Amino acid sequence: MSAAPLFLDRRTLDFLLFEVHDAASLCTRERFADYDRADFDAMLKTAHDMAAAQFAPHAARGDAEEPNFGADGKVVLPPEVKPALDAFIEAGFMASTFNADNGGLQLPYSVALGYLSFFYGANTGTAAYAGLTMAAANLLQTFGTPDQQRFTRAMIEGRMFGTMCLSEPHAGSSLANTRCKAIPRDDGTYTIAGDKMWISGGEHELSENIGHLVLARMPDAPAGTRGISLFIVPRHQIDKTGKSTGVDNHVRCTGINHKMGSRGTINCVMTFSDGGESVGELVGEPNRGLKLMFMMMNEARIGVGLVAAVQGIAGHRNSHAYALERPQGHHPDNRDPTADELMIIEHADVRRMLLAQKAYSEGALDLVLYCGRLVDDELTEETEEDRHAAAQLLGLLTPITKAWPSEYCTQGNSLAIQVLGGYGYTRDYPVERLYRDNRLNAIHEGTTAIQAMDLLGRKVARDGGKALAQLGQLIKATIEDAASDPVLTDFATALGHALETVKQTTMALMPPAMKGDMRLFLANATDYLHVLGHVVIAWRWLIQAGVARAALVADPEGRDAEFYEGRLWACRWFFTHALPEIGPRAKRLIALDRTTLDAPTYAV
Amino acid sequence: MSAAPLFLDRRTLDFLLFEVHDAASLCTRERFADYDRADFDAMLKTAHDMAAAQFAPHAARGDAEEPNFGADGKVVLPPEVKPALDAFIEAGFMASTFNADNGGLQLPYSVALGYLSFFYGANTGTAAYAGLTMAAANLLQTFGTPDQQRFTRAMIEGRMFGTMCLSEPHAGSSLANTRCKAIPRDDGTYTIAGDKMWISGGEHELSENIGHLVLARMPDAPAGTRGISLFIVPRHQIDKTGKSTGVDNHVRCTGINHKMGSRGTINCVMTFSDGGESVGELVGEPNRGLKLMFMMMNEARIGVGLVAAVQGIAGHRNSHAYALERPQGHHPDNRDPTADELMIIEHADVRRMLLAQKAYSEGALDLVLYCGRLVDDELTEETEEDRHAAAQLLGLLTPITKAWPSEYCTQGNSLAIQVLGGYGYTRDYPVERLYRDNRLNAIHEGTTAIQAMDLLGRKVARDGGKALAQLGQLIKATIEDAASDPVLTDFATALGHALETVKQTTMALMPPAMKGDMRLFLANATDYLHVLGHVVIAWRWLIQAGVARAALVADPEGRDAEFYEGRLWACRWFFTHALPEIGPRAKRLIALDRTTLDAPTYAV
Repeated sequence: MSAAPLFLDRRTLDFLLFEVHDAASLCTRERFADYDRADFDAMLKTAHDMAAAQFAPHAARGDAEEPNFGADGKVVLPPEVKPALDAFIEAGFMASTFNADNGGLQLPYSVALGYLSFFYGANTGTAAYAGLTMAAANLLQTFGTPDQQRFTRAMIEGRMFGTMCLSEPHAGSSLANTRCKAIPRDDGTYTIAGDKMWISGGEHELSENIGHLVLARMPDAPAGTRGISLFIVPRHQIDKTGKSTGVDNHVRCTGINHKMGSRGTINCVMTFSDGGESVGELVGEPNRGLKLMFMMMNEARIGVGLVAAVQGIAGHRNSHAYALERPQGHHPDNRDPTADELMIIEHADVRRMLLAQKAYSEGALDLVLYCGRLVDDELTEETEEDRHAAAQLLGLLTPITKAWPSEYCTQGNSLAIQVLGGYGYTRDYPVERLYRDNRLNAIHEGTTAIQAMDLLGRKVARDGGKALAQLGQLIKATIEDAASDPVLTDFATALGHALETVKQTTMALMPPAMKGDMRLFLANATDYLHVLGHVVIAWRWLIQAGVARAALVADPEGRDAEFYEGRLWACRWFFTHALPEIGPRAKRLIALDRTTLDAPTYAV
Repeated sequence: MSAAPLFLDRRTLDFLLFEVHDAASLCTRERFADYDRADFDAMLKTAHDMAAAQFAPHAARGDAEEPNFGADGKVVLPPEVKPALDAFIEAGFMASTFNADNGGLQLPYSVALGYLSFFYGANTGTAAYAGLTMAAANLLQTFGTPDQQRFTRAMIEGRMFGTMCLSEPHAGSSLANTRCKAIPRDDGTYTIAGDKMWISGGEHELSENIGHLVLARMPDAPAGTRGISLFIVPRHQIDKTGKSTGVDNHVRCTGINHKMGSRGTINCVMTFSDGGESVGELVGEPNRGLKLMFMMMNEARIGVGLVAAVQGIAGHRNSHAYALERPQGHHPDNRDPTADELMIIEHADVRRMLLAQKAYSEGALDLVLYCGRLVDDELTEETEEDRHAAAQLLGLLTPITKAWPSEYCTQGNSLAIQVLGGYGYTRDYPVERLYRDNRLNAIHEGTTAIQAMDLLGRKVARDGGKALAQLGQLIKATIEDAASDPVLTDFATALGHALETVKQTTMALMPPAMKGDMRLFLANATDYLHVLGHVVIAWRWLIQAGVARAALVADPEGRDAEFYEGRLWACRWFFTHALPEIGPRAKRLIALDRTTLDAPTYAV
């Protein structure tokens, strides 16, 4: 086992955040005017050090000793979890992006994603409690009444941790079938009653209180998604300042789900109004809850992509370190059995498995940080037009940012196991845990199929395809930039062809959509997500390669030359090994293949 | 949770074994002349019933309560394991394929694979003890002296379980670096000393004795693979009849490996000559051990393919049952929120995930049983020429049969989780266990990369490509048969193109091979394995579809019409969704892509 925990390194994050996404440029905007690059650097340094010292060391323990009820009926977690989160709060990381008038630090969202990527990369199980709380607080800051900001502040200060209570035991992907009830009380509050399923962070003793954001139906609410309202329901009742009174609000964890991975984060069945009334407050307007909740879900979707990416990076770092030190075998042209064995990193197939992990996971993190930048732009760009453009592009990219890293970085984690061979399959190394953990990401916050329907059925189709056209323009600009560099020109050409493939594919899908044949239109939506996802990641890699080339041209013998060359090789791997996979998928989409649509139930 | 354990069903196995591979025709051969179809049916029925009643019920327990040392220092397994294996032995399954003069039943190997597929499908962890023993006994029957048949008989009777001790802590894929020592003793036996790693079934109390087949080096043996000899080393000393004397032979389990999955089978670090001498007997000639061991490894490779396939089938059966009963959502053209929810099997993407699992796993099992038939043919075909042809084809197909199911049926198990969503990620359902279990198969008995090097570097290249030409002829014959059926003609055409792709790809790889540039020749060998693997599985599906078509034409309204139509849909899925994936891989191979070869160590 390696001594130091291996996860996302500063150099890679700095490259993406500052050299690719130019986060420092945000400091000219009013909201972020208090900051400069040195402030960001200091926060990132603190975050990386804290992640290494206080989060990474108990990641394996959090997996091995999964959450359970203790003898006193309270949830037991490893003892390292609370001090780690306390340190996180103490250092101000929870306050990160929030408004100054709520006690927040008003940092850019993209920078916050940057430092969160260290915590998640080191220990997703523990970091997730913070991430959920920040997402809940953000929703309350945006949609809560001035009075409800007491919840926001309690969360920012870490006194109240947050959850999102959407699914129910019978309703996962289909929130239209939410049954949880909200019955008005005389004082304007509501009694919330019913069961919620898959509630991460649903119960624990990490914070003084827990604030549950709950979807529920009021009496006589319309059927379907238009009859769902959003409520904030605390575990313990609170006073007017948001402080817990310690009085029970009858919110119970009635079951702990035992998962294959991601065990460091408790996941609960929650029952509201168990042995008494659970009193909550309406957030936003009645029957508009799902729309509001989508804000938190969108943030959560970007968060899932981030987790998938940094778990992929952790797998790459661990398998890379192993491959550098494990002797085994010879090159196939060396028949001398007495020759020294090679380190396995010398074998072509091991390099394939390392490059694949690198290209998947660092490409994914780039996309996630790009989305973070678009969140910042949506909030702080100067003109309404630019803010709208950012929002439009973000909407298109969100389902890809959630699903693509989940699918491919989990595949990457499988390759990390393969590099280690039998050792990778044992619990002595972290790669098998990463593989189990990452497998959740294609499921929660909407499965890959749900993301694909959102992408093709909503984001591509709406507004006459404006969002996709906008993306196409950006990709074309990158192609034009790269075409003049002899090292990148082949990639530029290949990306141009791939973009044309996307265009043809999208065109081919329009006739059934126009005719209202939604089943045929969406039959192979998952293929569409993979195609557009590959093109987007190829685009990200061509951008990274362009930045690396500029740095290499400026200083060919520089200290970071090998780092930059690593960008070029990962880019090359992606273009030769991954991007061509879009061909068969696009062909099937263009053919409007009906195999899955027409296969009878008994035949599948 | 489903009440009855779901795994490979009789109908599917019977279809493959009797309708596709015509196992009954083997009864005309002298070795199998005592049997008829009814005998096979009776054995298969007993096997399926026993697997359901005595193996499946403790599969989850075998995973949850992984092997460990008890207070007395002895290995503790769940109490159901020994009775299950005792019943297996009692019913004669261990004796299966062995020669009558050793107390064997002389059943065809393909039929034995048929009933083993039930046991492995129900509970790989427990069944593996039997499979390892049968493989060890087979090696000893083939290469042991008449006197050494006492070991064989002890294994067939279940008194001695077997292991294969190849790897060492520093040498997994590279057996050339075996260090374990064999020092001659005066009585013609040997003292075996050293450590062995990854030894499945290395220690337990399931049988009176354990017989270890160990690779070791004699003093002054040549370096590399030509200096390795094979030994049989019992846990306890034995008398002249093969019965344990109970006297310690100083073979110690010095560590238990804690794995991500496949926990039902103990996996050990073994130390030979621990606190005393471990005495063993040489099997076969000195320094020829690896060649002999390859016989057991070849059998083990087919066994790995079998396990991967039936674990894939178990995932399909469980997710199919879930999809039939889980209501969720509506078709995308149904906007009525009050409409009844659909069972999720109605959704196109769920059908995709079910068809993929079916096509992968049942195609894989077909290939495994085909290899079983080739083993039978190699042993019992009438002419030397036919026996040689069977051996040649078997050699080519073995690495594919090991690696392809391991890769794709594990992907299938991931899809099984996805069908169940959050529930699939919990330990309340068996699909997550299957996903963890199956992940081992691409590692043990030679990783996928090792299989790919064997396939391209040895099996395709040798004898002027005769084996591949032989396979090509068989595929062409299937194409010609299918071309005349209007339902199959498009598949026949597609398979013809795919075969042409294999030919072009292989041709493109020959120049570097001829020039001795073995690194370039083998750089993308894994791609080659995927390409040829897909073509072989497509061929198997076209054969299955042809058999199904004949049955449907003969009796369109027959009781099994839906079963046969299921064959046609899985075939169609494979041809539209899987086979086209060979395009980009073949293109990369033909281009002699050097990405993984040229990438410097620091850049991966």
